[in-house]
Amino acid sequence: MGEVLSIDPRTGEPRGRVATESTAADVGEAVRAAAAAGAALRDRAARVDLLRMAAVLLEKSGDEIIATADAESALGRVRLTGELARTCYQLRAFGDVVEAGGYLDVIIDHADPLADPAPRPDLRRYKVPLGVVAVFAASNFPLAFSVPGGDTASALAAGCPVVVKAHPDHPATSALCARILRSAAAEVGLPEDVVRLVHGFDAGPELVRHPLTSAVGFTGSVRGGRALFDIASSRPRPIPFHGELGSLNPVVVTTRAAETRAEEIGAGLAASYTQGLGQFCVKPGLVLLPEGPAGDAVIRAVVAAAVPSGPLLDPRMRAAFLAGVRSRAALPGVTEPLGAGEAGDDATPLAVRPGVLTVAASRLAEGGPYRELLEECFGPVTVLVRYGSTAERDAVLGGLPGNLTATVHLAADERDGAAVDLVAGLSEIAGRVVVDGWPTGVAVAHAMQHGGPYPASTSGSTSVGSTAIERWLRPVCYQNTPDPLLPPELREANPLGVPRIVDGIRTTS
Amino acid sequence: MGEVLSIDPRTGEPRGRVATESTAADVGEAVRAAAAAGAALRDRAARVDLLRMAAVLLEKSGDEIIATADAESALGRVRLTGELARTCYQLRAFGDVVEAGGYLDVIIDHADPLADPAPRPDLRRYKVPLGVVAVFAASNFPLAFSVPGGDTASALAAGCPVVVKAHPDHPATSALCARILRSAAAEVGLPEDVVRLVHGFDAGPELVRHPLTSAVGFTGSVRGGRALFDIASSRPRPIPFHGELGSLNPVVVTTRAAETRAEEIGAGLAASYTQGLGQFCVKPGLVLLPEGPAGDAVIRAVVAAAVPSGPLLDPRMRAAFLAGVRSRAALPGVTEPLGAGEAGDDATPLAVRPGVLTVAASRLAEGGPYRELLEECFGPVTVLVRYGSTAERDAVLGGLPGNLTATVHLAADERDGAAVDLVAGLSEIAGRVVVDGWPTGVAVAHAMQHGGPYPASTSGSTSVGSTAIERWLRPVCYQNTPDPLLPPELREANPLGVPRIVDGIRTTS
Repeated sequence: MGEVLSIDPRTGEPRGRVATESTAADVGEAVRAAAAAGAALRDRAARVDLLRMAAVLLEKSGDEIIATADAESALGRVRLTGELARTCYQLRAFGDVVEAGGYLDVIIDHADPLADPAPRPDLRRYKVPLGVVAVFAASNFPLAFSVPGGDTASALAAGCPVVVKAHPDHPATSALCARILRSAAAEVGLPEDVVRLVHGFDAGPELVRHPLTSAVGFTGSVRGGRALFDIASSRPRPIPFHGELGSLNPVVVTTRAAETRAEEIGAGLAASYTQGLGQFCVKPGLVLLPEGPAGDAVIRAVVAAAVPSGPLLDPRMRAAFLAGVRSRAALPGVTEPLGAGEAGDDATPLAVRPGVLTVAASRLAEGGPYRELLEECFGPVTVLVRYGSTAERDAVLGGLPGNLTATVHLAADERDGAAVDLVAGLSEIAGRVVVDGWPTGVAVAHAMQHGGPYPASTSGSTSVGSTAIERWLRPVCYQNTPDPLLPPELREANPLGVPRIVDGIRTTS
Repeated sequence: MGEVLSIDPRTGEPRGRVATESTAADVGEAVRAAAAAGAALRDRAARVDLLRMAAVLLEKSGDEIIATADAESALGRVRLTGELARTCYQLRAFGDVVEAGGYLDVIIDHADPLADPAPRPDLRRYKVPLGVVAVFAASNFPLAFSVPGGDTASALAAGCPVVVKAHPDHPATSALCARILRSAAAEVGLPEDVVRLVHGFDAGPELVRHPLTSAVGFTGSVRGGRALFDIASSRPRPIPFHGELGSLNPVVVTTRAAETRAEEIGAGLAASYTQGLGQFCVKPGLVLLPEGPAGDAVIRAVVAAAVPSGPLLDPRMRAAFLAGVRSRAALPGVTEPLGAGEAGDDATPLAVRPGVLTVAASRLAEGGPYRELLEECFGPVTVLVRYGSTAERDAVLGGLPGNLTATVHLAADERDGAAVDLVAGLSEIAGRVVVDGWPTGVAVAHAMQHGGPYPASTSGSTSVGSTAIERWLRPVCYQNTPDPLLPPELREANPLGVPRIVDGIRTTS
């Protein structure tokens, strides 16, 4: 069995052995143990306690968690302190969602012997958990999209036990957080096995294939995600695969916006595409800028912004970034106003330098090798596409794959309604439309949508925000069922006080 | 190109030529035309008008529709009159759903610079249509699950144009209904191409493969449905496939119920498994009866009930039914208290005779060839499984594949809470739990759930009832978007008066 090592990306040196890679038997044992623990999770109040206790215990071990995550990811203590706060907020927010009960989607239609077009029986519908959820931790968020992250929090909130496949970039952080989540379960009287952890590349397909696995949450690359999606879809019993695979996150800067706000837009873009060293799924990877002096001024502002070098998460990611930048820069007509590439920092062998490329929209329209520019290049680089007309600009937008986000920068006089078609067009290609802002920064909120047309996601759902809980539930309807035999959520007297739609009328508790 | 003929199942004779089978080019043209018509469907008020006008025009042509459907299906005018009423009710019900606007799931979080754990932008989320929906008409419901049926109605309600693949058992009914739906569109000022029709076996895969097809609704067999699901999942851009493939619809009769209500249960079962000549997706196909005199009495009542012969929908279905009954009856230990099979009716060559089989639960537990008894056998036959203990009974339930429905018959003294675990257990294996009733009869209602664990359905949704509209929508979030650039549903003043959740508080119009 392979050893699972924790590596310091600042030095490239191993920090120590965390575990051995999970065998098929290990994965099977983990899934069965999680499934067995699932019954206890039916207790809604215990789940609320679990989510809140998890936040408390993670905060209590905050120093150790942040130190461990920083040592494995080099993302820095400031960023990781924020990420831990987000993670704990998210756990508590899902506790609130469970407590409020709206996610149960309770709908009651009383019997009506005179109903049109036929007599209607008493029908009562709500949602129940799917079963064991396999969670694939993301490389780029060792906390918020990993072991204690949104997939785990929303699955536990739904009542589903979780088996997390740790990301090899932060196995020690994963093991530490899994230990804390399991302690939280024990602390509130739930079995620890509501959270299990597995390690190693082969554990992934095993986990998706296991007959007791009922759904998958994934954040990662198109290649890896699609391979697992294909496994999930081709099982004897196919299971839902909620994957977030890749996104260009296009940004449109209108001519009038460039004319009036070039400095501000250039500086904002520089900060956004280099945030987290470009290792964000919502990094703006393609920016449509007008040809001419106004667009040139935006580029000057991007180039002028201070963009520090830093180490990427791992050598494989760094190699892919460097190769991706080189092959894009080698395309005829592509220029490099700020060259991305090796940082030349001997002390930090994984370091890279952020940069930007430019290309004419007319080149992009040629397709062929230029199609590479329409694929995500993970890391601190963005492609500035110069358009000569709104027709050229809209042709580029129309040729894009699906995205998590689409952003537009407008001038003040375009905000009254002139840009309504442009904004509506962006909603066709993305799950979130951002106006006069940047896609980086994904608020944990009721209204958030983090997902979008394929390959942004493999399902029509979100992995961030309250509605992420929907992914792990299925509806069940009870027909003509005597009150004492109904789950409490559906009993006539509403003993749990959950919001419901009764005979078409929405009622609150 | 093959001719598409309308056949009379009462005589087996062709009634006439309806169309030619659609080529790949025909399918491509249909999908492109539907996609082009989609923009007009963004008008919510026009969709309400369309759904209501479709109901009016279908009713206006009711005599012709019923006569045509009866001539092609032999389902009888009484049943088809009811089915048309259901279909029209369903169209109007989805009109009401669109008008009420709750399905848009509008969620608004106002900007909050002091939000925990980070400042929050203004976020506004609602749902938008996916695009062209491919609908596969069912054999057994020429109206309610075919061209003007629930998939079409819910897709149009969502704002999605529809391309229906006609079922070969009722091509003339399909063509007639498509013509009427297209007239309804024209009548309310929408393009007729919001509904298109294609014919022929090869048109199915072409339709699922087409790049502009964005989702699929399917009702049919496990084999056919899974083949199309696999195509949908393996496309370069996978699309959601909402398929209803097959269901045993188990029924449990407790010992006390059999002791107290044998006559009533037997007569009810006979009526249910033969309704529509057993050609219902919710036909009770497996009934758990206690061993001993009480269970014997239920069987006597089933056998005593008058169960008329009749023609199945087509020769292929009849051959599959006869072969299915024969191979099941040939299993050692299986008895035939009422032999299902050929009706021996020369005037009606497709006629079959309903019947029941019995087997001991202990035999079923052997697996092997007995697994065939756990597969749906479409047509008027049901398998009575005799259990000797609740452990035996629960072992059978635990070994079942997913189901649309699961039913239990109780005695009066079991309705107070004694059966709570049994009822909860049924919710694990089905989308709808029926107590002291029969699964046939699927009410069109807000709380209905018609779908269940695989293979009952390939997704966690329903194909009947208000929430069926969810299948054709995806969420989009607008961030910091000036009011004039927002869709009206998300504007601050709520000009359309749609229900919303604002800053976590639900508001009605």
